[in-house]
Amino acid sequence: MASVVWFTGLSGAGKSTIARATEAALLEQGIPVEVLDGDAIRKTFSRGLGFSKQDRDENVRRVGFVAALLARHGVTVLVALISPYRALRDEVREQMESAAIPFLEVYVNAPLNICVGRDPKGLYGKAQRGEIPSFTGLGDPYEPPLAPEVECHTDQETVESSTRRVLEALQYAPRAIKTAATVRAKM
Amino acid sequence: MASVVWFTGLSGAGKSTIARATEAALLEQGIPVEVLDGDAIRKTFSRGLGFSKQDRDENVRRVGFVAALLARHGVTVLVALISPYRALRDEVREQMESAAIPFLEVYVNAPLNICVGRDPKGLYGKAQRGEIPSFTGLGDPYEPPLAPEVECHTDQETVESSTRRVLEALQYAPRAIKTAATVRAKM
Repeated sequence: MASVVWFTGLSGAGKSTIARATEAALLEQGIPVEVLDGDAIRKTFSRGLGFSKQDRDENVRRVGFVAALLARHGVTVLVALISPYRALRDEVREQMESAAIPFLEVYVNAPLNICVGRDPKGLYGKAQRGEIPSFTGLGDPYEPPLAPEVECHTDQETVESSTRRVLEALQYAPRAIKTAATVRAKM
Repeated sequence: MASVVWFTGLSGAGKSTIARATEAALLEQGIPVEVLDGDAIRKTFSRGLGFSKQDRDENVRRVGFVAALLARHGVTVLVALISPYRALRDEVREQMESAAIPFLEVYVNAPLNICVGRDPKGLYGKAQRGEIPSFTGLGDPYEPPLAPEVECHTDQETVESSTRRVLEALQYAPRAIKTAATVRAKM
């Protein structure tokens, strides 16, 4: 049983960046890993879902289901998804814990004005021009985690520093250590 | 890279039964395996999809995506899904082949009147009473595979016999052999 690491935060906060850096570090150690990235997911098994609360919730549930499938087969799963609603993240956490899958919530925290300034995909601009309805942070809510396993202040720390803390948290997840050791022993 | 085995056929033809027997045989050999069963899938990541051609096509695509994810991580995936449309099954085959994932189509073939007689879930009865629209075989089409890797005539052969032929086909899938050998070497 491998871990599921769930990166949540505003668009532009740095979720995918830290997830990819974590992926690279785990691959270097020979640990099987898969990134489930919000943008890619919406082109595959969540195609057709929109950004209403109901559709966002359904998206989170689907990603949770696929993540659990992979984790059960020893794949560490890194989910990079805004997932703005606390109740749904907590639902995923309960789902994982009831399946004995270690779950780490990583709050990728950058102030809204920083994210708007970065705007790597030009989405905040579009949202501000009214071209995207229901945009998280502008009109649509973001409910920050109350007790995340890791919090990354990406306006104050480097990607390397954030990634190191995620990796440390993974090491201390008891089952994650076991999985990594098992994988190494098999290689 | 493990194989994806895609069981297609009418409701009641025996897809899940053969898939579960195949799963048990692979688990006994220590080969990682996952069954993606149509009924279960519609309660999780395909919840909300109906039985129109469009929704069935979307369901097949989603299952194909998840199956590929698992196969890439060394899990042999057994899909048990009516998947009545040839074009969509061919699309999945191309998707797998382009990702170098061995793909086996297993046509679980029993005549409609036999399936109606078995009716293990009472669905044909409901469909005949007009309570289920778009039921495959009654009103809705089923397009049989033209060149399946395996064809099981479940009205003429035992579950054991069908399962043995699926396992043989898996052995002869070149990469499947490699995967099984790799897994055994690691255990």
